Amino acid sequence: MKKIHIIGLGLLGGSFALVIKKKRPDLIVTGFDQSAKHLEQAIALGMITEAKEQPDPDTDVVVLATPVDTLTNLLEQTLNQTGDRTLVFDFGSTKELICEKIGSHPKRANYLAVHPIAGTENSGPKAAEIGLFDGKVMIICEMEKTDVHLKGMAYELFELMNMKLRFMDPKEHDLHLAYVSHLSHVTSFMLGKTVLDKTADERHIFDMAGSGFASTVRLAKSSPAMWAPIFIENRKNLLQAMDSYIAHMQAFRDKIAAQDYEGLTDEMIDANKIRDILDLEKGR
Amino acid sequence: MKKIHIIGLGLLGGSFALVIKKKRPDLIVTGFDQSAKHLEQAIALGMITEAKEQPDPDTDVVVLATPVDTLTNLLEQTLNQTGDRTLVFDFGSTKELICEKIGSHPKRANYLAVHPIAGTENSGPKAAEIGLFDGKVMIICEMEKTDVHLKGMAYELFELMNMKLRFMDPKEHDLHLAYVSHLSHVTSFMLGKTVLDKTADERHIFDMAGSGFASTVRLAKSSPAMWAPIFIENRKNLLQAMDSYIAHMQAFRDKIAAQDYEGLTDEMIDANKIRDILDLEKGR
Repeated sequence: MKKIHIIGLGLLGGSFALVIKKKRPDLIVTGFDQSAKHLEQAIALGMITEAKEQPDPDTDVVVLATPVDTLTNLLEQTLNQTGDRTLVFDFGSTKELICEKIGSHPKRANYLAVHPIAGTENSGPKAAEIGLFDGKVMIICEMEKTDVHLKGMAYELFELMNMKLRFMDPKEHDLHLAYVSHLSHVTSFMLGKTVLDKTADERHIFDMAGSGFASTVRLAKSSPAMWAPIFIENRKNLLQAMDSYIAHMQAFRDKIAAQDYEGLTDEMIDANKIRDILDLEKGR
Repeated sequence: MKKIHIIGLGLLGGSFALVIKKKRPDLIVTGFDQSAKHLEQAIALGMITEAKEQPDPDTDVVVLATPVDTLTNLLEQTLNQTGDRTLVFDFGSTKELICEKIGSHPKRANYLAVHPIAGTENSGPKAAEIGLFDGKVMIICEMEKTDVHLKGMAYELFELMNMKLRFMDPKEHDLHLAYVSHLSHVTSFMLGKTVLDKTADERHIFDMAGSGFASTVRLAKSSPAMWAPIFIENRKNLLQAMDSYIAHMQAFRDKIAAQDYEGLTDEMIDANKIRDILDLEKGR
């Protein structure tokens, strides 16, 4: 492995560039970002050796780190531009559609469908962090469809990133992501919107924003350009999750209105079980 | 000021004891907790000098740090047990009802209505932290109704705790808290519940719980015994906040179903404004 090309040098693509350049300074890392400003920042931050719009045909690995609605076309285009010995993978947060669309592509074996469970509410090259992926989970879908030799390069990179690998069916991935990640983003965006709509006087939000509010609303700072495509692409699963959430919220609302102390307590005791799971995560 | 008594030695009462005993080791700090186990832990943790169910009549300051549904009765009882030169304040998260009920009490001037905007998702004496209040906001309601000399002792304590004072009407306090704090807790509890209901296989939650989910759901670990009374007592304001939130959520849901990229983007750009306010907070 000598040459890597990264398309999209924002939070994920930029963080990938930083860690790979640090761990393997011998690699040539080329890259591109559609935003001239972001491309300039990425160069200034030393993320890439050279800027170029498309990968050289002899590139070993091409990483696609652009919004999910651009990925399928970009993947097809990239497979057509590169050779038989190039591996392409994407960092998209949805996997069902891209796996389905690329399923019958003659170079399907050159593609690996992955999703790093890592991120922050910030975006762009300046938000990139060298330790973003450290210790996090990398989900790999349909691994059996990727050429075994090409896959080896991906595993080598994920090891440099110090990631834990998990294997999952693309449909199952999208369904669970809807509940655990996409729904969290929606609830944060809507919390931010509700509070802002009500509290025109910003000083009051400031005064009362104890640490609880800040952490619950944090994801409301996330990039609309990244999230609108994810919500739309994963709408079937996300709408199911949101409908379930709204129903729970409505039932809780009615228990508050009825001053149902026991009922509210029971619901909160149920929700408290999330502690065991998160503690398990921390301990691992 | 020589003697302080604390009723309720959990997260807030215990943290108060820790910081006060550290900063003013000369003070006698007595205290009580209805839970024998918590009282024992508080003694073991060195929070109080002596356990006693009710304050000595010559106690300078009594702090009430029990669930909000117990506070009004406890406040009346405490005012009856203590002398004319004792100040009583409570740490309750709602202020309208207690201020209203105590308004015509002959010893109203011995009471100061305050609310520290500080907390974590943990509870009990073992969750107490010496720095819990450090740099946080203390909201004071109806300060003009408290005796000016007695109030001085509270200000001295709040300075030892390194808190920033803010003054607010009790009704306004409860309304804004409903939006900024109580709604955040409800959305977290319901997020935890929705995800747990769906994902019976806990391993999947663990795998996908990127940092985003963990921070959004953190408050779902909070104590039902603390929060059921707050939700019920502040139900008028909280139901308004929840209804507004549910309406926003439903509208966002419909935009996802309609694949309305522009509409979703606009809503998220609005919500992004929360960043400016939270950054303002950090910078202050």
